[in-house]
Parts: sequence; C-alpha cells; structure tokens
Amino acid sequence: MSETLASLRSLMASHSPPLDALVVPSEDYHQSEYVSARDKRREFVSGFTGSAGLALITKKDARLWTDGRYFLQATQELSAEWTLMRMGEDPGVDAWMADVRLLYISNLPVEAAIGIDPWCVSVDTALRWQRAFAKKQQKLVQTETNLVDEVWKSRPPAEINPVVVHPIEFTGCSVAEKLKHLREKLKNEKTRGIIITTLDEVAWLYNIRGTDVSYCPVVHAFAIITSSSAFLYVDKKKVSAEANHYMEENGIDVRDYADVSSDVVLLASDQLDSTSEVKGTVAKVTKTDTAMGNGTDEAGGNNNDRIWVDPGSCCYALYSNLNSEKVHMQQSPLALAKALKNPVELDGLKKAHIRDGAAVVQYLAWLDKQMQVSYGAPGYFLEGQSANKKKDLGTLKLTEITVSDKLEGFRASKEHFRGLSFPTISSVGPNASIIHYSPHAETCAELNPDNIYLFDSGAQYLDGTTDITRTVHFGNPSTHEKACYTAVLKGHIALGNACFPNGTNGHALDILARIPLWKDGLDYRHGTGHGIGSYLNVHEGPHLISFRPHARNVPLQASMTVTDEPGYYEDGNFGIRLENVLIVKEADTKFNFGDKGYLSFEHITWAPYQTKMIDLTRLDPEEISWLNTYHGRCRDILAPYLDEYEMAWLKKATEPIGV
Amino acid sequence: MSETLASLRSLMASHSPPLDALVVPSEDYHQSEYVSARDKRREFVSGFTGSAGLALITKKDARLWTDGRYFLQATQELSAEWTLMRMGEDPGVDAWMADVRLLYISNLPVEAAIGIDPWCVSVDTALRWQRAFAKKQQKLVQTETNLVDEVWKSRPPAEINPVVVHPIEFTGCSVAEKLKHLREKLKNEKTRGIIITTLDEVAWLYNIRGTDVSYCPVVHAFAIITSSSAFLYVDKKKVSAEANHYMEENGIDVRDYADVSSDVVLLASDQLDSTSEVKGTVAKVTKTDTAMGNGTDEAGGNNNDRIWVDPGSCCYALYSNLNSEKVHMQQSPLALAKALKNPVELDGLKKAHIRDGAAVVQYLAWLDKQMQVSYGAPGYFLEGQSANKKKDLGTLKLTEITVSDKLEGFRASKEHFRGLSFPTISSVGPNASIIHYSPHAETCAELNPDNIYLFDSGAQYLDGTTDITRTVHFGNPSTHEKACYTAVLKGHIALGNACFPNGTNGHALDILARIPLWKDGLDYRHGTGHGIGSYLNVHEGPHLISFRPHARNVPLQASMTVTDEPGYYEDGNFGIRLENVLIVKEADTKFNFGDKGYLSFEHITWAPYQTKMIDLTRLDPEEISWLNTYHGRCRDILAPYLDEYEMAWLKKATEPIGV
Repeated sequence: MSETLASLRSLMASHSPPLDALVVPSEDYHQSEYVSARDKRREFVSGFTGSAGLALITKKDARLWTDGRYFLQATQELSAEWTLMRMGEDPGVDAWMADVRLLYISNLPVEAAIGIDPWCVSVDTALRWQRAFAKKQQKLVQTETNLVDEVWKSRPPAEINPVVVHPIEFTGCSVAEKLKHLREKLKNEKTRGIIITTLDEVAWLYNIRGTDVSYCPVVHAFAIITSSSAFLYVDKKKVSAEANHYMEENGIDVRDYADVSSDVVLLASDQLDSTSEVKGTVAKVTKTDTAMGNGTDEAGGNNNDRIWVDPGSCCYALYSNLNSEKVHMQQSPLALAKALKNPVELDGLKKAHIRDGAAVVQYLAWLDKQMQVSYGAPGYFLEGQSANKKKDLGTLKLTEITVSDKLEGFRASKEHFRGLSFPTISSVGPNASIIHYSPHAETCAELNPDNIYLFDSGAQYLDGTTDITRTVHFGNPSTHEKACYTAVLKGHIALGNACFPNGTNGHALDILARIPLWKDGLDYRHGTGHGIGSYLNVHEGPHLISFRPHARNVPLQASMTVTDEPGYYEDGNFGIRLENVLIVKEADTKFNFGDKGYLSFEHITWAPYQTKMIDLTRLDPEEISWLNTYHGRCRDILAPYLDEYEMAWLKKATEPIGV
Repeated sequence: MSETLASLRSLMASHSPPLDALVVPSEDYHQSEYVSARDKRREFVSGFTGSAGLALITKKDARLWTDGRYFLQATQELSAEWTLMRMGEDPGVDAWMADVRLLYISNLPVEAAIGIDPWCVSVDTALRWQRAFAKKQQKLVQTETNLVDEVWKSRPPAEINPVVVHPIEFTGCSVAEKLKHLREKLKNEKTRGIIITTLDEVAWLYNIRGTDVSYCPVVHAFAIITSSSAFLYVDKKKVSAEANHYMEENGIDVRDYADVSSDVVLLASDQLDSTSEVKGTVAKVTKTDTAMGNGTDEAGGNNNDRIWVDPGSCCYALYSNLNSEKVHMQQSPLALAKALKNPVELDGLKKAHIRDGAAVVQYLAWLDKQMQVSYGAPGYFLEGQSANKKKDLGTLKLTEITVSDKLEGFRASKEHFRGLSFPTISSVGPNASIIHYSPHAETCAELNPDNIYLFDSGAQYLDGTTDITRTVHFGNPSTHEKACYTAVLKGHIALGNACFPNGTNGHALDILARIPLWKDGLDYRHGTGHGIGSYLNVHEGPHLISFRPHARNVPLQASMTVTDEPGYYEDGNFGIRLENVLIVKEADTKFNFGDKGYLSFEHITWAPYQTKMIDLTRLDPEEISWLNTYHGRCRDILAPYLDEYEMAWLKKATEPIGV
C-alpha cells in the first residue's frame, strides 16, 4: 500500500467520528475547472492527472471515478491499489456508497461516516449525497481540516501573485455600474446579500485579474455583496498599495481570505454591514431606502432576510453557516451578466481574435514549409506521396510539443498577449482521436505527412480570450478522412449560419452541427459549444450548446459568445475538429413573426479551413458560397499582420473553391 | 344570469360542504382529447365549443381558460357573464384561485372549498391543484355526483354502441401476447396490478373497437390487469354474445362500467383476483409463480403490493381509493407498447395511406376542374388572373364544407373506411391562418381563385388511421406566399430526411423543420409531429416532435409513427401547412459510431406538393432530387386507384422540376 493511502487511512481512523470513507474531489474551494498546483489533491492521492475525476478512499478500497474522455489515461496512470469507475457505465459515486440492494455484501456499511472537506464540495453535490446516504443511515461528515493536505508533505506553497486592476478600456463597465445592477437583482429577489465564490465572477465584478491559476487570469478570492457593502476576501499580501487605493475608491472592503467564513455568519445575522468602514464612491444605502419597493411584505416590514447562494458553485462549508430556510438558492446573477458582453468587450474580443488568427496563419505557413523541408511532405496544398526526405532532423524535429511551442511563440509576439487560455491540444494521427489529448515531452508523437494533425488552442489577451481548432493534413488524406472532414465542416457551417428566435437555447441548436455526421452514422461524444470569457476563463457559462438538456441551460442572447466546434474521432486512427468563436447578435430577418426578435451568429475567428480536405461534391452551393466569403474576409482582415510570404500562403489557402 | 349558472350556484350552495367554486374541465372520465356529446359538460355550461378549455364558476364569477388557438372563438361564443382567461397571458387556473398576493382583495377566500368531479380530473392535475390551494388553506372537494349533469336537463343519453372485436389480421398481436408483455412490466416494477383508464389503451390491449366517441374508434371502458386476471369495465349492453365469447376465450372478465370503483378497492386489498371466475386461454398464474424472480424483496417475501397508476391519465376518483404510499406512479407501459407498431400494423398503415392518398389525389383533380369550370380559375397548374366566370352557382357553389364533404366521399369509397379521424380542417384564405379552424355550414367561406386553400384531414380505416395536410392555390399566388410555402416545404423535407442515433427525442429534431422559416423571421405556434394510431386515435403518444421539452417525451424508436407538419400562419391573410405521416425505421448508414444504431424516416403518405407554389431558387439540389423521387413514387403507388383523367392529372402534378 502506498504511503499516502496508509497515512490517509490512519487519519480517517483517528478522526472523530472515525471515517469509513473519504471523498477527494478535483475541485478547489471555488469549484474551479482549472486549479492551482497546490489544489490538485485528487491528482496527488490517486496519481491520475486528468482534469476531471473524483477519488474515494475507504478502509480497504480506493476508487477513482472519471468520464469517457479519460478512461484510457486513467488505466495507465492508476496504480494497482486503485479501481477505475467509468462514469456512464459503472454506478455513480453516491449510488455506489449508498448501495442498498444487498444488505449482507455492501460497499459501505449502514451508518457509515463519509468524510468530505466541505470547502471542496458544492451545495448541490453535498445535498444530493446526503439524500443518497440517508437511505442507509449513512452520514456526510465535514472534516475540520483537509486530510489530504495533512499528509501531502511536498504540497506546493501558496503563491503571492499580485491582484491587477483590469482597466475600463478593456472591461467597458465600472465596478460601480456592475454593483448597481447586482444590487437591483438582490432587491428583486428580496435578498440581503449574495456570496460569490466563483473566481471568474469575483474577477469580473471587481474588474481585477491575477495569475493564481494557470490559464485563467483570476485571483483566489471570495466576495460578499449586500445592498450597502461589498467585500473582497483575498490574501492581503497580494494587494498592492495601488490596488488597495482602487478598492477603497470603489467601495470594496478588502478582508483576509479566511475571514469569509465568519463574515458569512455575520451576514446571516444582519451584522456584516455594520462592520464595514469603507467609504468609497459607491454611496451606502440606508435601511430606510431598502425598505422601499419590492423589499416590503404585506405588513409593510422589511423581509430582505434571505442570503443568495449559487448551489452549483458555492462550497458547502459556507452554506453550512446559514439557516437553510433563509437561503435563496439560485444561479448567481453574475453568470449571465458576465456572459452578456458589453460593446467594449465585444470590440476587444474581435481584435484579440484577429491577432490570434494571424498567429494561427503564421503558424500554418511556417509548419507547411517545415513539413515540406524536413519530411518531404507534399504540403498543405498538394496531395500525393511524401518524398521521404526525413533524415536525422536533430533540433528541427517537429513533435506535438515543439510545434505547439512555435504556435505559442507566434501568439506571444502579439499585442496584449498574457499566456495561453488552456493547455494546447497538439495531436498527430491516433492522438487526435483523444478529445482532451495533452502531449508530454517524453512521449509525444512526431508530425508526419501521412497523418492528420489537429490543434486546439487559445490565448489570453488583455482584450479577450481566444479558442480555435483546425485540422490539417500535409500529405495524402484518405477519401474517408476527407468525407469526415467535410461532414464536420458542414455541421460547423450549419450551426454558424443558424438564425433562431429569442428564447432558443443551445440544446435545441446542437443537432444542427450533428445532422451531416449522423447521415453517415457518425457522431462525437462532446458538446458543440461553450461561452468564452473577456480575458477570463476559456469555458464560461451559463449557456452552452450541447446534446444534453442541461438544467441550468439558458437561452442564447445577443452579445453572448459561444464556440462552434463539432468533430469526429476514430479511435486509433485520427480525429477531426473545427472550432470558431461566434458572437450572438440580432438577426436582420425580413419578418419578425411573433415579435420575438431573431438572432444569428457572427464569426470572430479568422483562419482558413484546409480546402484540400474538403470533398466538394458533398457541399451544397450555399455552403461553398459561405466558405468563399469567409476565406475572403480572412485575407482582408489578417493582411496587416502578415509578412509577404505568409500573405502569399494565405492567399493560396483562401482561393475560392467550386467556381 | 343564465338558468344554468343559477342552478349550478344553487347546487354549490346546498352542497355539503358549500362550494365557493366549481371546476368544470373539458375531459371525460378517461381524459380523452375528443369526448362524446354527453361528456361536453364544459361546452354546455360555458357555450364555448372549442376542444380545449376549463370553466370555473364561483359565487359571483364565471371564467373560461383556453389557449391561443381559441382566443378569438371564445370571445365570440362566451356570453357577458363569462370572463375569458388567456392561457400563457393571464394567471393559470390554480394560481388564480390560490392567489396569495393580496389578503384583502382575493379571487377566492382563504379556506375556500373548490369542487371538482374527481372522475374528470387526472391525478397529476388534482395533486398540483391541492398543492397550490394549500398555500391559502383552500380545499379541493370531490363532489359525489357531477353537478353539471344534475342541471343538464337535455343531456344526451348514453348510447349503446356495440363492442367490436378487431381481428388479428389488423392487430397483428393477440390479447394473450399483449397481456404477457404487460405482466412482465408489472413484475419488473413490483406491482400487483395496473389500472388502465385511457380509452385507446383499453381498445389496443383487448383488440376491441367501438364508436362511443366521434372520430376515435374506442369504447367507453376501463381495465384492470393483475398477474393473473384481466378485467374490462364496460356497459354490458354493448357486449354481444359473440363478443362475450371472445372475452371469455381471452381470459377477460367483463364487468359493469361502474364496478371499476369498488374493484379498485378490492385490488388495493389484494382481494380482486379471487373474485374473478373467468377461465380463458390465458393461463392463470399462481401466487407461487409471482413470488419468484424480481418480485421478492431482501427477506424473500412477496412485495408486489403496489398498484400502477398513470398519473397523467388516471382520474383522481380511482386514485383516491388507493393508499398513496402503495401507488406506483408512472406512465402506462401500454403508451409505448401501442406506439411501437408491429409488422402487421405497419403494413396496414401503409396500405391505408395509399388508399387515402388516392382519395386526396381524386379530390384535388376534381377540385381543380371545378375551380376552373365554376370560378374561371387558371387552375392547379397555371398561374394568371382568373376569368371571373362565376355566376349564380347554386348547388355547384364550392364552400369549405361542400368540398370537404366531397373529400369525405372519395375516402368513403375506399376499402375498410370507417369514418373520419378528426373534424376536417377545410379553410380558405384568412381562415387557413386559424390553426384549428373548423368550418360551419352557415358561416363558412367559399373557395376562390385568389386565395390559398388548406385542408388537413384524415380517416379511420380498419387497417390504419390517416392524417394529411396539403395547401394549394388555383390562381396566382403571391411571391410572398410562394416564399412561405417553400420555407415550410424545406422544413418538411429536412425533418423527413433526418437521420439520427437511437436515444434522440422529438424535441431535438423539431428545430430541423423550423430552421428554413426562422431564416426569414417566420415560425409557427404548434408542434411539428405526433404519433398516429393503428385504427385508433389520430393523436397518439408517448412521443412527439415539439419545440417544448416535454416531461413525458420519449426517444423516437423504430416502428413508431409520427407526423411531419410544419406550417406558417399569417393572421387575416393565409395559412400554409404540409403534413405527411412517417414511420421511424432503422437507417442504413455507412457507419455506426458508438454502436448506437441510427434511425431515419419513411414517408407513408402519398399525394403531390403543388409545384406551382415552390420558389425553385430557394431549393437546393438535394431537396429538388428528393421531391422528384417522392413525386415519382406517388405516380407509381397511386396508379391502381385512379381513373384515366385522375391519372393524367397526377402525372402532370408530379412532373419532375428543376431538370
């Protein structure tokens, strides 16, 4: 047995009450998708490095639940002590623990105590588990400390990364304005205050950014906002004098990260506001003011006594400090507010995507040349067998990693670049069939003229976050590969060209991207689109385009961003994905039936599709026309960023087809 | 005040307890969509003749709730005593009654007693109302008798229509087989028995048909099925000696309609089976048998003590006789079993639709000639101004009613015809924009060469039920009308040509029929498709194709039937709808990604689309090719049923386009 498991089990046994099981989720205190190194507790205990998964340690057993993207990787990374639980195939974690089918052979005993760190589990999850456990009189036990942290001797220390104010030229909206709108929401829902735990919501609301988490320019922080006060809970060492001045100016009371817990208790008893002494530009609202309007009940009294908690993101630890009858459980209004980009953000996103597209074109032109020079490939434009020129390439060797470093270099040379927005997926042939493939320096594949190459990447720029996928072939793609590429492209175009009434959600639109694939009996096992941040997270809700009806799914609305990324993956052979970022905008339709208002999309990603991969006989005239128009705009828009060679390459790549 | 309302209010006052309100829904004891004349209680009290709506009578108030299809009609039909409540705009009936916003001005008092006939309300509805009423300490009172029946002096008497056995050559599956499958379901769900209240489920299960309800060949009856017995509750006067013999042979215990109530009580106490003395061909299963398999709990005992109730269709009266903790609330398994047509039913449906299509072509050819002769119309094929030949046409006058009678005549001449499957929608110009328009002899419009004519109709044949809509113009359609017709046709084709993996539901597919309309900012306010019965109801679940995510929606499965009927309606101007019946079948795709199996549709309706109405520039090559193939098949398939003139007409109507 590994030392880690032995130490954990010893802690579990000596815990009061003794724990029969310990749950170790992937998430940090903020339910983040990407977490900092010191928050990778699940990876530390299990050895599994994938981004999603949950570990469960019992007295004799250790199990890891993860989803289909990671079955193969988990099998490789888990030691013999661990059992892989395949989500969608094996019982879920709560069903497994609370299994009631057989009384005599049970996964966990009746009345078992199951430990969790309540900071790492959302309210929704904790309540769902409690209900499941109750069937067998099992109990969810909140541990005082995180047991993993206690045994993790080499746990990376907390970093002190500065809180950076994100200027109004990029945010387009002041903190005062954002607080005003949020406070209107609080009033409408008759709530006294709201607890914000999601990192990008805190960053967005206060117009601050940081580097606490790789790929996401956020600060480890909580916020509490009431009708009269605004608090930021953060390691004060991260807040410079200048930043402190900014906070004061904006009426933000900066407190220690750990204070959030006791402050939630004060909030619940309506004593928090009186502890704040910050007097900023945001006028404090008196009790008399808030008692007006919606905040009055039939008897005329003030009944704004509820606390707004987003059950999907707020940690159970903070919720546990509240009277559950006085909690308003609803998605945070900041999720939607953040998704509706203002004109300055839209402008920034468009500009960032132009620079990003230029980097991608520079990369493709460079890669095309290298593939021909080093590997004798026919190249991006020609078909045919490769000349097999490859010798000992030494440092010229093109691997999934070396080429993606080059791509990063092109991006890094662009204005406002601040880093990548997620780990680049740079994948050759069979690796491209692994949807969330991440190459490692020691094991990664080398490019070659006989395989498809797929890259899915993006960057953080001060004016916007980007995300683009292109799939290319530098040799002789098979008829089958072309047919699949064309089906993916048809779905990509169909979704991007959709026009739909207000009220339509992404679940309804998802099928448009799949229909051309389904016609051949093909499909892909991931969603079709996600929102993208404005120099924030690359994956942003609350909307999404997915085949799954999602409880929190909201209709698409004008000024939202969303990706359009269908794909097709053939295990062991190749993968294809095409991804652009779209902006939802009001459509200019001839009619407006039902006075609903119609919406359509605007592409803001600019990079060519490889026409060599397209089976023209499968495109209808409308699709060909769209493609030629898009390619023409790529040329015009990217020209200022390209040198003569790159521009010549782009001209060739965007030559009209089917004419 | 009308005598009816006065009498009702008097009964309400003398009721014990006195009633503050009385709810009168549209449905009969079986939650039927179409009800018999004596069950039109809501129509009797309110005067409103639409198919959907709910009346509420309080001491001083009378209100009628109905949906958008009927706002105009309800305004015309309701007297001044009635207030129209617009569903989707005004508060719902439960919200209105239980309104808690203002304590001093209330729609109904606190602790109000609200009367319902528990036979006319489903379990779902009654429980929802009870929860709403509880907020104001209001009570749902089940009346012992139906108060409307007591004041309805001219209520039509119950008809004695014979129960007809539907032979195996049409049903394709014996009662024994159907009972066997149902009993497996009962066992799997650990239920002792099931109460079937939906008329088409009773008819389908026992292979019987009747004429108790217009348009639906069903018998007013209930059924109860246990692991060893099968009961039919029906007016015994309807059961001939021959039918009685059939029942005995099939182990069906025939009891009086009214006995269902006391038998449900016996079922609950496990005493029902012992009262049955029918010994049919269906072997009785002994207690020992049922205690095997899934029917045993951990201790080895028999725990099949629950009663299966479909909360969406079972009346509250029967449910009230049960211990709610011992009720298994789930959609009846017969809903899906009935929707999955067997090969004999599929064959019958196809044949019925061919005869029905022939009748439609005969009708169109006849109508074309009449329009030219009587009205000087350019006709079905030509455009141009009409010659204004119309004189005093006398009996030749073509009205919405006279032409639909002619259509019925063509159908009635066909083998196995048993009547219409719903009231024919025969509508000219502006009337076609009323989705559920039903012409009346006195007020109906006359056909004319300047207006679109839409007809939506279907018939009951012994081998299948049909439903088809076509929209035609005998003069000079406007560019706008053609553009709209073409958009509707494009949606109709896109849905019909869809290929999709198993697991896809109709909600996901719905958008395919709307996308071409949305592109121009057009839409329609109804669903896109419904299942259709095998000589049963024209509207059949449990699946549907709709923009609304429906809680009971189930995935489409091979051998289901479903209509494909997008439309477009312009108030006061015209309406367009195109409808075919499709069969879901396994698709012959090149690949089978995910081993899910893929499905597609087969059209079984055969009648031409009017090519004069199509704007060819808006169709892509694939759509044109589909249309020409479909028209070619119409010619081949319908030829045996048409005379020389009709065949010549059809040939012209199906000439290839765009070639």
